[in-house]
This record gives sequence, structure tokens and C-alpha cells, in this order.
Amino acid sequence: MFRNQYDTDVTTFSPQGRLHQIEYAQEAVKQGSAVVGVRNKNYAVLATLKRTTSDLASTQKKLFRIDDHVGMAIAGLTADARLLSKYMRTECLNYKYVYECAMPLSRLVLRVADKHQIATQRVSKRPFGVGLLIIGYDQQGPHLYETSPSGEYWEYRAMSIGARAQSARTYLEKLFETLDSCSLDQLCRHAILALRETVTALKDIDLSTKNCALAIVGKDMDFTVYEDEDILPYLDVIQTVRSQEMDGNTMYPKYFY
Amino acid sequence: MFRNQYDTDVTTFSPQGRLHQIEYAQEAVKQGSAVVGVRNKNYAVLATLKRTTSDLASTQKKLFRIDDHVGMAIAGLTADARLLSKYMRTECLNYKYVYECAMPLSRLVLRVADKHQIATQRVSKRPFGVGLLIIGYDQQGPHLYETSPSGEYWEYRAMSIGARAQSARTYLEKLFETLDSCSLDQLCRHAILALRETVTALKDIDLSTKNCALAIVGKDMDFTVYEDEDILPYLDVIQTVRSQEMDGNTMYPKYFY
Amino acid sequence: MFRNQYDTDVTTFSPQGRLHQIEYAQEAVKQGSAVVGVRNKNYAVLATLKRTTSDLASTQKKLFRIDDHVGMAIAGLTADARLLSKYMRTECLNYKYVYECAMPLSRLVLRVADKHQIATQRVSKRPFGVGLLIIGYDQQGPHLYETSPSGEYWEYRAMSIGARAQSARTYLEKLFETLDSCSLDQLCRHAILALRETVTALKDIDLSTKNCALAIVGKDMDFTVYEDEDILPYLDVIQTVRSQEMDGNTMYPKYFY
Amino acid sequence: MFRNQYDTDVTTFSPQGRLHQIEYAQEAVKQGSAVVGVRNKNYAVLATLKRTTSDLASTQKKLFRIDDHVGMAIAGLTADARLLSKYMRTECLNYKYVYECAMPLSRLVLRVADKHQIATQRVSKRPFGVGLLIIGYDQQGPHLYETSPSGEYWEYRAMSIGARAQSARTYLEKLFETLDSCSLDQLCRHAILALRETVTALKDIDLSTKNCALAIVGKDMDFTVYEDEDILPYLDVIQTVRSQEMDGNTMYPKYFY
Amino acid sequence: MFRNQYDTDVTTFSPQGRLHQIEYAQEAVKQGSAVVGVRNKNYAVLATLKRTTSDLASTQKKLFRIDDHVGMAIAGLTADARLLSKYMRTECLNYKYVYECAMPLSRLVLRVADKHQIATQRVSKRPFGVGLLIIGYDQQGPHLYETSPSGEYWEYRAMSIGARAQSARTYLEKLFETLDSCSLDQLCRHAILALRETVTALKDIDLSTKNCALAIVGKDMDFTVYEDEDILPYLDVIQTVRSQEMDGNTMYPKYFY
Amino acid sequence: MFRNQYDTDVTTFSPQGRLHQIEYAQEAVKQGSAVVGVRNKNYAVLATLKRTTSDLASTQKKLFRIDDHVGMAIAGLTADARLLSKYMRTECLNYKYVYECAMPLSRLVLRVADKHQIATQRVSKRPFGVGLLIIGYDQQGPHLYETSPSGEYWEYRAMSIGARAQSARTYLEKLFETLDSCSLDQLCRHAILALRETVTALKDIDLSTKNCALAIVGKDMDFTVYEDEDILPYLDVIQTVRSQEMDGNTMYPKYFY
Amino acid sequence: MFRNQYDTDVTTFSPQGRLHQIEYAQEAVKQGSAVVGVRNKNYAVLATLKRTTSDLASTQKKLFRIDDHVGMAIAGLTADARLLSKYMRTECLNYKYVYECAMPLSRLVLRVADKHQIATQRVSKRPFGVGLLIIGYDQQGPHLYETSPSGEYWEYRAMSIGARAQSARTYLEKLFETLDSCSLDQLCRHAILALRETVTALKDIDLSTKNCALAIVGKDMDFTVYEDEDILPYLDVIQTVRSQEMDGNTMYPKYFY
Repeated sequence: MFRNQYDTDVTTFSPQGRLHQIEYAQEAVKQGSAVVGVRNKNYAVLATLKRTTSDLASTQKKLFRIDDHVGMAIAGLTADARLLSKYMRTECLNYKYVYECAMPLSRLVLRVADKHQIATQRVSKRPFGVGLLIIGYDQQGPHLYETSPSGEYWEYRAMSIGARAQSARTYLEKLFETLDSCSLDQLCRHAILALRETVTALKDIDLSTKNCALAIVGKDMDFTVYEDEDILPYLDVIQTVRSQEMDGNTMYPKYFY
Repeated sequence: MFRNQYDTDVTTFSPQGRLHQIEYAQEAVKQGSAVVGVRNKNYAVLATLKRTTSDLASTQKKLFRIDDHVGMAIAGLTADARLLSKYMRTECLNYKYVYECAMPLSRLVLRVADKHQIATQRVSKRPFGVGLLIIGYDQQGPHLYETSPSGEYWEYRAMSIGARAQSARTYLEKLFETLDSCSLDQLCRHAILALRETVTALKDIDLSTKNCALAIVGKDMDFTVYEDEDILPYLDVIQTVRSQEMDGNTMYPKYFY
Repeated sequence: MFRNQYDTDVTTFSPQGRLHQIEYAQEAVKQGSAVVGVRNKNYAVLATLKRTTSDLASTQKKLFRIDDHVGMAIAGLTADARLLSKYMRTECLNYKYVYECAMPLSRLVLRVADKHQIATQRVSKRPFGVGLLIIGYDQQGPHLYETSPSGEYWEYRAMSIGARAQSARTYLEKLFETLDSCSLDQLCRHAILALRETVTALKDIDLSTKNCALAIVGKDMDFTVYEDEDILPYLDVIQTVRSQEMDGNTMYPKYFY
Repeated sequence: MFRNQYDTDVTTFSPQGRLHQIEYAQEAVKQGSAVVGVRNKNYAVLATLKRTTSDLASTQKKLFRIDDHVGMAIAGLTADARLLSKYMRTECLNYKYVYECAMPLSRLVLRVADKHQIATQRVSKRPFGVGLLIIGYDQQGPHLYETSPSGEYWEYRAMSIGARAQSARTYLEKLFETLDSCSLDQLCRHAILALRETVTALKDIDLSTKNCALAIVGKDMDFTVYEDEDILPYLDVIQTVRSQEMDGNTMYPKYFY
Repeated sequence: MFRNQYDTDVTTFSPQGRLHQIEYAQEAVKQGSAVVGVRNKNYAVLATLKRTTSDLASTQKKLFRIDDHVGMAIAGLTADARLLSKYMRTECLNYKYVYECAMPLSRLVLRVADKHQIATQRVSKRPFGVGLLIIGYDQQGPHLYETSPSGEYWEYRAMSIGARAQSARTYLEKLFETLDSCSLDQLCRHAILALRETVTALKDIDLSTKNCALAIVGKDMDFTVYEDEDILPYLDVIQTVRSQEMDGNTMYPKYFY
Repeated sequence: MFRNQYDTDVTTFSPQGRLHQIEYAQEAVKQGSAVVGVRNKNYAVLATLKRTTSDLASTQKKLFRIDDHVGMAIAGLTADARLLSKYMRTECLNYKYVYECAMPLSRLVLRVADKHQIATQRVSKRPFGVGLLIIGYDQQGPHLYETSPSGEYWEYRAMSIGARAQSARTYLEKLFETLDSCSLDQLCRHAILALRETVTALKDIDLSTKNCALAIVGKDMDFTVYEDEDILPYLDVIQTVRSQEMDGNTMYPKYFY
Repeated sequence: MFRNQYDTDVTTFSPQGRLHQIEYAQEAVKQGSAVVGVRNKNYAVLATLKRTTSDLASTQKKLFRIDDHVGMAIAGLTADARLLSKYMRTECLNYKYVYECAMPLSRLVLRVADKHQIATQRVSKRPFGVGLLIIGYDQQGPHLYETSPSGEYWEYRAMSIGARAQSARTYLEKLFETLDSCSLDQLCRHAILALRETVTALKDIDLSTKNCALAIVGKDMDFTVYEDEDILPYLDVIQTVRSQEMDGNTMYPKYFY
């Protein structure tokens, strides 16, 4: 388990110029269950895998509503995410109070990323161990952002973070150029299928109304979470894909729309 | 006893993205004696095992009344729990003063979970070494929450934490779908039986008026603790089960109601 | 002397979820000379062993008067105890000033236990290395409490802490059910005999007016300390027991009253 | 990975009088993708390589507009750079508010370099892990500055920092004496070609509208970023050079203007 | 010189519940030159050994006047003692200002002992490395107190601290029961003889006007220091004892009064 | 690279009474390029070697103007020097504002040396890693001061610090008694020749208008920097010396004036 | 170079009750060049050895004027001494302002010694690495004090500190009883001769106007420093002694007056 002497303190650079504690905090993101985000011209959609520790347990909260026009999905330390969501809600409220309009997404994301950064430059703190996929809709249309424990952020058309997110990203990369022209229904199904990629390696799990959730925000549509029964309509594609897989057909870009 | 170099400080991530000190604090929860929580449509019930260090000692306080409509059972460091209970009482009082109504459970649990979180991101602090099972009744009906040293919280229908809590959870998982339709009396007896599971591995202990306690909150019923003689009526099931066990019958879902 | 890497800092949990520094502070309590507390329906009594470093030295102060209705005996670091006693006195004074009545014991004990707890959750502090046996009399009658460096506290009918306190506890456990019906005189003698148990293992020491003290509080009786000559009447039982021991009779529950 | 005992703390000098943590922070600059800056008598130009982690990802932001007359390109930790850019924007605004004119470049660069320095002399901080190439135009004409994590800064006619920046510097050194007499178009193409030097060692990459960006500020021209299609006109030189390289001709000072 | 890992920090308990740093600070007291204190019904007397580093050096100050009715002798770190003496003087002045009478000894000693204690429970401090013998005269008559780096204090009839103080204590223990009935002159001579015990092991030193000092406080007598010639009258006993010793007579309780 | 355990913290003395971190900071001064200072009755002159990291780089700033009558040359960490220069400028301005005259040199140097000292006695700081040669002219005539990271300062007639400064000092020691009677022109040439001594060991470097600079302050002459072409007149002596060296004549006190 | 684990922190006692960091700071005093102080009934005199690092360097300042009636010589870290001298000057000024008379020496020395002490009891500080010989004249006549890094201080008739000060002390011990009756001229010469003892072990050095200085304060005479030519009259004794030494006569108490 020994690594090196530069990795126990977020204010210590390694001889290679790296801040190991930030990288380790990014590992915490990878340990969270996967979340997927996609957007087209008018809508942004999040799909999350709900993980539960036992049948008794309610599933860990992965989707957070920030404002009417903003919401997010998280991967990593839930409690850290909650602290950030509280901060973001306050920022949105203050903005609305001062400017009498909804806070632009880019501005909100910048603020929360700065909060990440500050935690990486103080001896008395640790980096936030959580990554955020933030969706929202403002005057510039729908947005999808990712923030990282390092304080960086990026805008995307489609993205996935969390455990085995690479599989989902591979799926998304194949078709992300077509996303803009998708209908909202198609967009949701793409999110579902991308999310499914993160669990196909696990033998006895498949997506169901129990273990996944969707969130949509967009034109004339406030941030809304779909769970349990509400998500059922979007799961029909799972059935289709599964029957195709049984036929040995694994090239779903063909069968999908 | 050597483990690794990343586990002595709550602000240090391990290369795998874990905060070991939080995990160790969660071990403190497992060292507390077991507590069980269940709820139906109208009531929430806690059952706790009272542990005592000698015949002279009063039993360690495990049940805390927070407000008329809220109470909790704790597993872990009692003194840490007391500090949190004081905080929760003040929050409830302030809420009542400002809004002239009882504080919603979800809001109260969020506050105390945030207090947990803050202790995980300061060099000068340590995580709270205690887990809480919080029950209450508000406009949304009865609730059962768990909070963890990590700052996470979950809502449940039935849950158990503390030493050998897994046995109780196994019992609860078998029947938790029937809990909603239970009467309050049945609910209490389920809690007692689940709690009994945590001591069956210990040869010379069985539940009695001396070593367990119940707490109930619900519709038209303030948070009330039942101890000593008051708990006797609910212990009848122990007698029934024990006689069945002697008959070699261990499938109590059958004999129970 | 090597133990492990988790025991030098009160804010570090061990992998087993323990805070070793708190446990070590509890060892400090065991190094103090023994104190015994008992109570019946109307009175609470403390008996302490006065330890002295030389014939010249006055004996270490073990009994502290807090208020008319409260006092305590301590085992462990005297200076830490003094700081706590000062705090308790101020609390009692403030309460009396605000509410114009004596502070209830439970409330006072809660406050001092919270002061213990805070010292266990700050990097810049250490736990208090002292245990307190607090007696008092309020509207609920007489009380006997113990506080611990961990911030925990318990109410008792009879208790002993300090060096070889286990012997005293064994004595008390045999008869604590009869304590309620004891007269005050019997209560004092029980305290003396329990305290004597802690020194019987030491060959050349026996209780005398020089090395023990009593404190009584109760109904119509303010906290009063009996030392030197004043304690002589209660030491008669020592003489009785000793002669019986010489006769080979060691079952004193028989000869005592 | 072991180096020495003087390199984990920014406030510790090595026996050779070096502050290793500052040097390690400078390594972070070298890990950022390359940026190039050049200026002539009237204009200053930045060229940056846009790095992306996946096709889905938007490219990491490398160019920051500070004010109408100032902008910068960064290499190193993006989040640190963002913090500094926010500081610089505020400085410019304040200056404009007080003096009613644009802030002189030298003054602005001094301020941000001082901010770097402070982070190198506090135990509770770490150096900023980012290098800045700042361009601007004020009453003294166009400027090009570099700041370093050490708190040093330099003015240049042409400079490159980031990964493999040495190759770009070699290119620039050959012709920097002719820069003053270049036209703006030539200046941009020099920047592009210098930037291309940093990727020629990488087999399968060449500059395109996708992976590079330009920024220009100068006489009668506010700070403007050219990306995507807008950069296409300046990339014609790439085509020319590439065909020459295929002819085995590698001495481009000859073929270029 | 290796001992254990628990002894470099005053806020770390050893597994045995000890605070080694406090014990080490008490060693500092033993390294100071000896001081002796005695009292009878009306007077308290201090005798100190004046240590000097060279013939040129004035002797280290060992006696401190605090107020008209209080003074002290110190063993250990002189500079720490001076800080405490300044604090005590201020306390006495404030008391006099508020209550218009001299500060009772017990109250003053409690204050300075609390100041000792606080230094044992802060990470940023160290224990005071000095022991105090405080004498004074108030409405309860003469007093003799000792304070320790641990924050403890004791009242005595006779006491000695510092290097080889055990020899002095042995002398004092033999006769301390007769002290109450001594005259002031006898008391002083007892102090001198006790002090002499601490140097008899050193071959070439005997008490003289050069190396010892007396301080007296009592009924109708403010705290007064006797040094040099003033101490001569009390040294006559030395002569007597010495001649007896030459005669092989070492039982001075016989020859003395 | 191992040295000892006392050299990582500026607040730790070694057993020999040394503060190694201060000594290491003084090494940082020796790593800076050399600077030379000389003065006669009316003028003080600084000569500095300008070091550059590449042809593109502007040379590192070595000369700082503080006020009309004060300036300095630095060797060591440039960013630390800049911080100190800012402080000195503010001190001069404040003095001028309050007393309506230029700040005396001795007073200014004392202030900046005190700033050095403070950084050597705080755990949270590090010593400044820079040495200053300060020249100025006030009512007492011209001055030349050196300050060190240790907080010490000295006044000189001639001095050199930085890399290979010993060679320059050797040159200066030979003739410093004649300095007072030099003309300003001679003084400048002495500074140039002394500075040249620091590079003669380096084969392929000689002083030129590119790599050295002069600064002069004195009677009726504000602090002025001479660089590039302006320094040419003073470089004539280089030519003279070089031709003499080729003749094998190395005793330049003879050939010079 | 390894010593023990208790000597890197001024707040850590060794098991022997020692504070090694204070002792190491006292070593810093021994590394300073020697200073000598003597006084008679009316005057106090300091003699210091001026050390210089090169011919160019002005000599390190060893004598500090504090007020008209006070001055001091220092051995150890000059910068630390300067900080203390500034403090002393302010104290004297404040005293004069409030009481309209010169500050008594004993009071001033107490203040500066307390400042020493505070630096020995804070984690964030280090002891001052300097010893002071303070002379002054007040209503009680002339004084000579020494302060130490430990916070201790002593009054003397004659004393020497710094490198090889023991030789000077040996000289002074032989004659200090005659000092009171010396004339001021004799006193100065004694100081010079004592100082000379510290250099006789060094072969090629003898006292001259270049390397020593005198300071005198006393009755009707403000603190005055004698350097260079002014000291010449007092150096005549050196000549006398040296000729006697050549004659093999080393018992200068005989030849001197």
C-alpha cells in the first residue's frame, strides 16, 4: 500500500508537480454508482443508478434539485455533495433575489467549482470527494456540466461519471453527434442505455424501476425527477436490447431507432 | 495492527479514494449495543438493548426524546450522541418558535447529517462516533431515519444498527413488506423479536424487562419510552418463541400472528 | 510499550472504532485512590480514601463541595477535577440567580459531562483525566452520578471508582438491593466497609481517622464533609469486622446489622 | 521516488537554499498543454493547444479574457488559474473605477505575481500550480508577460510554456528578432508554427481547428479569441509546412515568409 | 534515552493513564536548589539555598515577595516562576482594590494552581517547570502551600522541594509535630537545619551567610527576607551541630533545644 | 543529502545553537547572480550581472528603485525581494508624508532588517530567501548596506553578494581604501571590474551591455539605472583588462589608473 | 549528531526535566564574540570584541544604546538582539512619558527577561538566541545585568558572555573584590584586559582600536560608546602586558596598578 511521501497532504506537490490528494479524491468519484447525462437542443437528461445497501434501506440519494431550472446527479461522497447542493441552492436564491431572474448555469457552475478549488489549497481542509453532473436550462438553452474534486469543470453534450462510467462513455461517444436531433423520448432512452452499459459487466443486475432514476430539465419544463413507476415507459428499450442480445446481436446502434 | 499511512487523519484520502477515519468511526457504531426501528402507516417504533457494565450501574442511555414528535435511539459513543441530541432539540425549539409548528423530520435529519459532515472535513475535528435511528411523526406521517458518521442519512421502513445488527436486519427483511399493515401492537412485537435476534448468539442472555426498552411515536401519540414493567406486555412473544424453539421450530414467521 | 499508531491523538479512531486516548484517560481514573458512593431513599454518602505522599503532606483533596445540595468525590488528576468543580460551582450559582432555586442534579451532571465530551473532539485539547462521583439532593430526592473522561455519565444507587474499585463494587453488589431501606448510619457504615475492601489487599493499611473521609447530603441536610475525629463514630464497624476476620469469619453480610 | 527531507513543505529551505515545493509546482506547469505567446510593435498573440480527455469532453479552458485590453493563456492546474483570473478581473475593474482608465499591464502583472509569492511563504498554503502567459495592450503598446508559481514574472517578445514548450522556444529563438516587423497575420502564423513544434514529436497529432485556438489583443483591437472555424485561415501554413516536410525539407525559416 | 511514544506532548495520555510531560516538568523542580518551609501557630518561614554559577554571579533569585502578607520560594525554572509571581501580585492587588483587604492565601493558591493546570491541557503550551512553596499569613493564621507543575497544591506544616529535598523532609518528619509549639527563633533554626540536610551529602559545602536566605511572615510581621549578615544569628546552630558531628554524635534531635 | 534533525524548521535550534533554516536561506542568496556595491565620498554605485534563462527571456530584475534617494540590488529569490521592495517603498512614502523629508537610510534599513527577523521567529513562516545591497544618499552622505535572511545588516564601503561573490570581494579588498578618493567614473569602473571577477571562472562569458547593469545614487543625483547602451562607456575597462590578460599580465591594480 | 527525541521543540520537557531548545539557544550566545561588563561604585563599563567577516564588512553591531542612562552589549543572534533593543527603547520612552523620570534598571531588565520567557512557552515561537549584558545608572547607582534565552537574569559586579568568556570570567574573579574602589580609568582597563583574555588563545589576534569598543555609563555621564581612536588611551595596558608576557611574566595582578 506504500506509495510515496507526497500524497498525504493536499498542499504538497510531488516532484512531478502532482497533487496526489486531489487524484485520490477523484478516485472517490469513481467509487460512486454511475450517473449519465445527455442533452439535445432543448432538453438535458440525467440517468442514475440507485444503489442500496440492503432491501430495508432506501436508496442513496443521487439526484438533487437545485432550482426550478437546475438539478444535478452526484457520484462519490453523498454528504459532501449535500453540502455543495445547499451552497448552490443559496446561490440561486440570492441571484433570483438580486436580479429577479434565474441564475445562468455557467455562473452557478463557476461558483461551485471555485468552492472545490478552495478546498484544495488549505492545510486545514480536504478536497470534496464528489463529482457532479449538473443539468439546467437558461437563456442559452440546455446545459450539461461536470465538476471535479480538483476544482475543474467542463461542459458536455453527453457524459458519464462514477463506477464503470467508461462503458457508458463509449456508448455515448458512438452517437453523441446525433444527440442534438433526438427527441426528448429518444434522449431519455439513450441515457438509459448508456447507464445500462455500466452494469452489463455485473451478471445478475439489469436496470429496472427499482434501481434507476431519470431527471429532465428543459424548455418549458422545470427540473423533474422520474422514479419507480414513472420511469417504466423509458425502460422498454431494455427489453428490446435484451432480446437482441439473446439473439447474439450486440450492435445496438442498428436496432435503436 | 498496521494498516496503512492514510488512516490517521480524517482529511486524508487513501489512493483508493477512501477516508479511512470515517470508516473507523462507523466501526464505533457497530460496537454499540443494537437498536431496532420499524414503522407502519401510523406509528414508528424503536427497540433498544440496554447494556450495563455492572449490577450497580444504571443502564447506558440509548433513547433520547428530542421533541414531542421526534425521538431517537443511538449506537456508538454516547457522549457524542448527547451533543447531537442537544443540537437537535435546539433546532426543534427554534423552528417551533419561528414557524409555530413542529419541525418536519426530513429537515431535522438533514441538519444533523450536515453536522456529521462538517466533522469529516476539518483537520481540527474528528467524525462523530455514533449512528442514530431517528423516529418521528409529522404531516407526512411516521418516519424512520438513520444517520451515519459519514454525514449520510437514509429513510427506512425497518432498520437495525449496532452490534450484531445484521441478524436483526435479516429478520426484518423477511417481513418488512407486511409492516405497513401491522397494528401498533404487532409492530412493537416485531421490533422486540428483531432485537432478540441480536442476542440469540449469546448463550445466557434473553430479552427481559431489565435489558430492553421500547419507544413509540405516531398519530395522536407523542414520543413515549416504555421501560421496565411497561414493556412487559410486549415481551409475551419472547415466551412463545422460546417454547417453539425448544420444540425445534425455528421458522417463526409462521407462528407469529 | 509499543501499542499502535492510533493512540496518540484524541481525534483519531482506531480501525476498531475506538478512541484510545479516551481509554488511556480512563486509566488515569483508576490510578486515583478509591472513592465510594451509596444512597438510600433520603441520603447520599461518599467515602474516600485520603492518600498522602509523606507524613508532612496534607492529604490530597478528594471531596469537593459544589453547592449546598451538591458535592463530589474524584479519582484521577486532581487539577483537572478542580477545573471542573469551578465550572460546576458557577453553573449552580447562575442557575440559582436565574431561577431562584437549587439546580437539579441531572441538569448539572449533563453540563459537566458535555464539558468532558468537548475535550474529546478537539485536536488542541486532551480528555480530562478524572472521574467524578457526584452526590446531591433535589426535588427528586438523593442522587449518585458518575462521570467519565469519555463524556458519559450514569446514575447509580452505589458505585466505586479509583484504584481497586472493583473490590468495593463486589461488596456493594451483594447488598445494594437493601440500601434503600438502610438508615443513614447504616449507609455510612456500608460506604466505609466498601471502601475498606479496596485496601484489604494492602497488608499494612487499614482505615482510620487519618486516611478516610465521609461526605453526606440529603433531606434537610446540606453537603457536609466528615474528617478526622468526626469520622470516628463510623469506624466502629472496622473494629467489629477485624475481630471477626481474626476468627476466620469472612462472611460479613451476616455480622453486619 | 525518495528525494530528500526538505521537499514536502513550502516553508522549508534545502541545505542548498532551494524551496523544492516551488520547483515541484513549476513541474505542474510543464504538465499543462503548451501555450505560445508572441508580439510585434502593435499586437500580442497567444496560441494554445486545446487538450480534451474524450470526444465527449469539451476542451479544457486555456484562454481567459481579463479585461478589454488584457487576456491570458495558462498551463498547469486550471482551477488555480481560474482563481487568479478572478482576482485579476477584480483588480482591473477596481482600477478602472478609481482612475477611469485601463489598468497598465505592468501593474496588473505585479499584483498577480505578488499573489503567487504570498502562497510560497505560508505554512497553511501551497504554491499556485500554474503558469500564466499574459498579453495586453496599454499606453506603452503591446505586452507579453509570464508569471511562475515562484512569484517571479518576466516580460518577453515571444515565449512558450507547458508540455514540450522547449521545442516552441527553439523555433521562436530563431526568429524573434524579426517579430517586431511582422504583420499581424505573420505573427499569428508564427504562433501557430511554434505551437506545432510542441506536437511534432507526437506521431498522430497535427494542429487543426479542433485542437488549437488563438487570441489577439493590440492597437484598436480588444482581446479576442479565435476558435474552431475562425482559426482556419491561420492554419494554411500548416499545410504548406507539411508538404515541405514530406519533401524532406525541414528548414522552414527559409520557406516561411 | 528512548522511553516511549507518549511523552513528547502534554496532551497525550500514556496507555497507563499518565501524562509524561507533566512528570518531566516535575523533574525540573527537582533540579532546582532546595527550599524548605515550616510554620508554627503564628509564623511561616522559608529557607532557601542560594546557588550561584560563579563567584561573579549574583545568586539566582529564589525568594519572591508577592504582597505584604505573602511570599514564596521556588525550585525549577526561575523565569517561569517570575511569570507566576507577576500573576500572583496582580491577583493580590486586584483583590485588595475590590474587597479592601488582603487576599486569603487559599484563594491565591487556588488561582495560581489553576494557571498551572491550564498549561497542561493546551497543545500550544507546556507545563510550567517550577514548584512553589508559598507562605503567608491571613485571618486563618500562617500558611504553607506547595504547588506543582501538574496544577495540584497542598497545604503543609513543613515541606521541602528541590534537589535532595528528601533529606530535608526526613529531618522535618521527625519533629514536625513539635513545630506548633516552637518559638519563631526555633522555627528559623529548624528551617536552617532541614536545609542543611540537603547539602551534607556534598563534601565541601556548608551553610553560610553566602549561600542561604530566610524569609519570615506571620502575626504582625510582613513578609521579610533575611540575607547575608541578617541571617548570621540563625546560623549559630550550624556551628553547634558541626562540633557535635565531629564528636560522632549524629542524633541532633537530642542536642537541639 | 541527510544532514540532521534540526534543520527543517526555522524555530528549532541545533545543539550547537544554530538555526539551520536561516543558514539554508543564506545559501539561496549565494545562488543568485552576483551584485557589487561600492561608494566614495559622494556617490554609491551598484553593478549587477543580468541572468537570463533563454534568449527570449527578458533578464531577471535585479535592480529596484525604492525612492529618489534609495535603490537596491538583490541576490536570491526575486519574488521575496519584490515583497520587501514594496514594503520599503511604502515606508519611504509614509516617512516623507509625515516628516516632509527623505527617509534616512539607516532607518529604512533597520525596518527591512526587522521584517527579515520576524520571519525567522514564527512557525508559520520561512525566512526571506534573499540578500539586499541597498544604496542611498541622505544627510550623512552616500551609504551602502547589506541585509541578510538572518535579519542582520551591515554598512560597507564596498561589498558583493551572490554567486562567486568572493572573487569580487577579493578584488574590492585590495583597493577599498582608495575608494573614497575615486571619481564617480572610477567608482563605476571599479564596480564593473569587481563584477567581472565573478564571471572570469566561466570560460565563455564576459561582461557586455547585454548582461550587466549599473545604478548610481549620490550628491545631486537621484537613483538612476544604466542598462544596455548607457552602460557602454563604463565597459571600456573590460577591453583594457582583457588585452592585458592576453599579455599574461594579471596584476590589474597596476594597470588600472 | 543524533541526541534525543526531546530537543526539537521548546515546549517539550526531557525525562530529566530539561528544555533542550533553551539550552541550545544558550549555545547561540556562546557563539557570539565575547563581551565584558564591569562596574564600580559610580560607573558601569562594557567592553566588546568587534568581529568582522571581511575587511570590507563593517563590524557587527554589539553595543546598543537604549536610553540616556542604559545601554547593552550582546552576544548571539544580532537580529534577535535588535528586536529586544527596540522593545527596551519603547519601554523606556513610555516610562519617561508616564512617570517623567528615567526607568529604573531593575524594572527594565525584568520586562525584557519576561519577553525572553514568553518565547520559551509557545509552540509557535522559538527562544531568543541572544544574551544581553545591560549596564545603566539610576537612583540606586550603576548596574550590570545579564539576561539569558531562558528568561533568567542576574545582577553582577563583573561578567563576561560570548565565545571563550570563561577566560575573561577567570580574570575578573581574581580581582572583582577590588572593583568597587577602582577609578573609572582603571575600570576600563580591567574590562579591556578581561576581554583580551578571550583572544589570547588565538595566536594572531590582539586587541586594537580596530577590533574592540568600550561603553561607559554612570554618575553624571550618559551612556557613551568609545570606538576606533577614542579607545586608544585605554589600550596602553595591552602594550604593558604584552611586554611583560615577553619577559615570561604572566601574573598581571602584580604589574597592573
